[in-house]
Amino acid sequence: MPHPDFEACLNAAMPARILRSVEGLLGWDQETHMPKGAIESRSMQKEYLAGLCHKEQTSPQFESALKKLIDLDTGKILIHDLSPEEGAAAREWRLDFIKQHKLPSSFVQRWTKICSEATHAWSISRENNDFKTFAPHLNAIINMAKERSEHLGYEKHPYDALLDEYEPLAKTEQIDNLFAELKPFLIDLTKKASRSTKELPTGPYPRSAQIQFATDLMFDIGLDPHHVRLDVSSHPFCMDLHPTDLRLTTHISEDNPIQNISAVMHEGGHGLYETGLPPKFYGSPLSEAISLGIHESQSRFWEVLIGQGRPFWECYYPKMQESFSQLNTFSLDDFYQRLNRVEPSFIRVHADEVTYTLHVIIRFELEKDLITGKLNVNDLPEAWNAKMQDYLGITPSTDSEGCLQDIHWSSGFIGYFPTYALGNLYSAQFFATFTKTHPDYAARIAAGDLKFIRAWLLENIHRHGRHYTASELIQNVTGSPLSSDSYKQYLTEKYL
Amino acid sequence: MPHPDFEACLNAAMPARILRSVEGLLGWDQETHMPKGAIESRSMQKEYLAGLCHKEQTSPQFESALKKLIDLDTGKILIHDLSPEEGAAAREWRLDFIKQHKLPSSFVQRWTKICSEATHAWSISRENNDFKTFAPHLNAIINMAKERSEHLGYEKHPYDALLDEYEPLAKTEQIDNLFAELKPFLIDLTKKASRSTKELPTGPYPRSAQIQFATDLMFDIGLDPHHVRLDVSSHPFCMDLHPTDLRLTTHISEDNPIQNISAVMHEGGHGLYETGLPPKFYGSPLSEAISLGIHESQSRFWEVLIGQGRPFWECYYPKMQESFSQLNTFSLDDFYQRLNRVEPSFIRVHADEVTYTLHVIIRFELEKDLITGKLNVNDLPEAWNAKMQDYLGITPSTDSEGCLQDIHWSSGFIGYFPTYALGNLYSAQFFATFTKTHPDYAARIAAGDLKFIRAWLLENIHRHGRHYTASELIQNVTGSPLSSDSYKQYLTEKYL
Repeated sequence: MPHPDFEACLNAAMPARILRSVEGLLGWDQETHMPKGAIESRSMQKEYLAGLCHKEQTSPQFESALKKLIDLDTGKILIHDLSPEEGAAAREWRLDFIKQHKLPSSFVQRWTKICSEATHAWSISRENNDFKTFAPHLNAIINMAKERSEHLGYEKHPYDALLDEYEPLAKTEQIDNLFAELKPFLIDLTKKASRSTKELPTGPYPRSAQIQFATDLMFDIGLDPHHVRLDVSSHPFCMDLHPTDLRLTTHISEDNPIQNISAVMHEGGHGLYETGLPPKFYGSPLSEAISLGIHESQSRFWEVLIGQGRPFWECYYPKMQESFSQLNTFSLDDFYQRLNRVEPSFIRVHADEVTYTLHVIIRFELEKDLITGKLNVNDLPEAWNAKMQDYLGITPSTDSEGCLQDIHWSSGFIGYFPTYALGNLYSAQFFATFTKTHPDYAARIAAGDLKFIRAWLLENIHRHGRHYTASELIQNVTGSPLSSDSYKQYLTEKYL
Repeated sequence: MPHPDFEACLNAAMPARILRSVEGLLGWDQETHMPKGAIESRSMQKEYLAGLCHKEQTSPQFESALKKLIDLDTGKILIHDLSPEEGAAAREWRLDFIKQHKLPSSFVQRWTKICSEATHAWSISRENNDFKTFAPHLNAIINMAKERSEHLGYEKHPYDALLDEYEPLAKTEQIDNLFAELKPFLIDLTKKASRSTKELPTGPYPRSAQIQFATDLMFDIGLDPHHVRLDVSSHPFCMDLHPTDLRLTTHISEDNPIQNISAVMHEGGHGLYETGLPPKFYGSPLSEAISLGIHESQSRFWEVLIGQGRPFWECYYPKMQESFSQLNTFSLDDFYQRLNRVEPSFIRVHADEVTYTLHVIIRFELEKDLITGKLNVNDLPEAWNAKMQDYLGITPSTDSEGCLQDIHWSSGFIGYFPTYALGNLYSAQFFATFTKTHPDYAARIAAGDLKFIRAWLLENIHRHGRHYTASELIQNVTGSPLSSDSYKQYLTEKYL
């Protein structure tokens, strides 16, 4: 039986949770099915709901229900017989409330509007390879991000406040240190691991067969057909509307079947996390993901550690060959080598697992400089290209394959990128523990058993929601705090 | 330039309008793409938004903005320099506000919940042909409809209050009179017009070719590809999220291509109305449809008066034959006869245009009796079957093809059915004027020109929104008040 005061707080929190779900549906629809000409009306709906949601997140009703559970100033739990889960929920609710409360409603609405316009401008700029059109919008976003950081407050670095929205409790300094250690290692490994591989047989890899393959795979990894659907969008994503209502999207290229499979494994990993959150706590932090870093650890676990591993393809490559006859003359070895080819390239989302984190580091460094004013928006393309040359040894020939490639900044997601790298670190550290617990994992996967993987993730990670912080979780599950050791060891063993 | 007080009222009305759009998206998604297992979470979202929407429709902000325009008690316009449109908007806003204000919030939320549960029970009952499971839910709906009627108030008949929600200003007595006149006419015409026709060549009429045909047709009648999409659902519908965002659905049977075409013409007719409403007045009654009867007149105009007419098929039948090769040996005459076959049948949505209105009359008579308590829910199947035998000469062998066939009652739509019949009457009367204005209409349609039809409807009906009441509109457009004359004359000429 939940504590009545916990339940009262859950009820008071529900409106905002429902509104966030509905916002999710508006976003999903916009990327998958919405008629193109409806963009203005959709923006209006999103702006309105964002304001409403913020109002609910900071409503007096919620505040007074929360105040019964926890002292908002000190964080002291005020009810002695809350369960540990309920106490954790109160702790997380408080952090969310304080954060939201610091943002004025007018700011939230303005933020949504400016991001909406910037996203529109970005997509045109990218298409036309025209950074100048996007620059004033990005400038407005950076200025608002600075303002946001001041509203939210920080101790050491203005970037801390932004980072904290995606990776609660993480600090810029910690990321600086991790990246300082990773950067030379990855630059070095990229050089050493780069080798030529055979090219995949030419397409077409028919769209319908790819969708069928993706759908089967989505169910094989453990998603429930009753609660998930798959669509196609220009950028793959996972939208969780509820633990019982999950929407994945994939991207299909008829020239290359790998993009689709990576997308489904990646988004499927996110989806398993979301559908593994306990529905009975829906509306509370106990039914929410801890952080974007932990979320990304789940997607990368499936996409890379499972889905780019040899055992997985021992099982799935014959199925691929059945679906795509041109692969019959291409060996498993060749496929595996191609899949894991390390090679500097321009586009982050298509990068291999070694260079990927370098792409992230570049963005983190540039974001920080933009926020502190060290870098001017107008000088961004040049700074981007210089870092690409420094870390990856290549220079984009256009801004569209350079600083215009990602949607994040136009959406106001400043402080988001580092969580991609954290996801890689977390996933490698989880994987090391997973393989210790299941020393026979490779044989089981090669034999087509994937369900025990989900079971392990569910037991250790998903079912806890935000009961533990990210630091507590990694300590509980792996016995150590987060470090880059497992990641470096995994990459070294795989590539050297 | 809009009057500033009108604009203030428009701004105050916008939240409710946006929420209704979002509710529309939730409904559309539920019927088209939502994973089946998400139904409970979807119901929760819909209940919450319904409550929120009602709160906004009756908010003090809206009330005080409206009170500047119009005296809520007397309906007297208080601002002398409002434009005629703005005055009409104030008049309609006032009527809506008074109606919504009479319904307590708690009632609205309970209503939504009970309807949501009843719809779920109905779909199971219909599948299992088990009226008993549905009966207690229907009983609850009828009781709540009585309560609703008392909340809303009425002068003569409790059904008036319910009818008014779908067909503002219409009265039960008026429908009684129209139906009293139509019933013997239609029963007689059904007998005289029934004749055997050749059956369509057997299927399959491939799904993908049907969808392509429907899509082309949707654009041919004047819908804008930039603002509309077509999906497949078990029951076809038209969901307007905004004048710039329209969602049609169709139903595909591979045995019979007519259902799909009827659906697209019908829903397309609704869609042309919705996308013809002036976006600049979005949020006000000037960008809303007058009534369900007028709405249905637009769908029936396209589905029946155009889409089951000979000129249309002179143009489209060769296209059909191109798409479905089995029709090459089936003549246009045979197809036209088959399309217009008059024959008593059980399912309203598949009924021909003569018997259709009799299906509606049956429902209207039963609804009235349920509301007044003359008929008990448990006795509904028997009463239904008796009327089917009386009016159409056939008796359903199961409740699934009898009183369980329609979703309306389970959705709480009591008072809705008569608008289908009104739609037929309005459409015939509009058509008579249209054909007078365009005496060459048949030749133009046969030559493939459909755009002038939309232009006429836009000019005369769509662009006005709720500027005029239904009675004013029919008088303005056709020069006469609504009567059954045009309808009877049209049917007589076509079938006798």
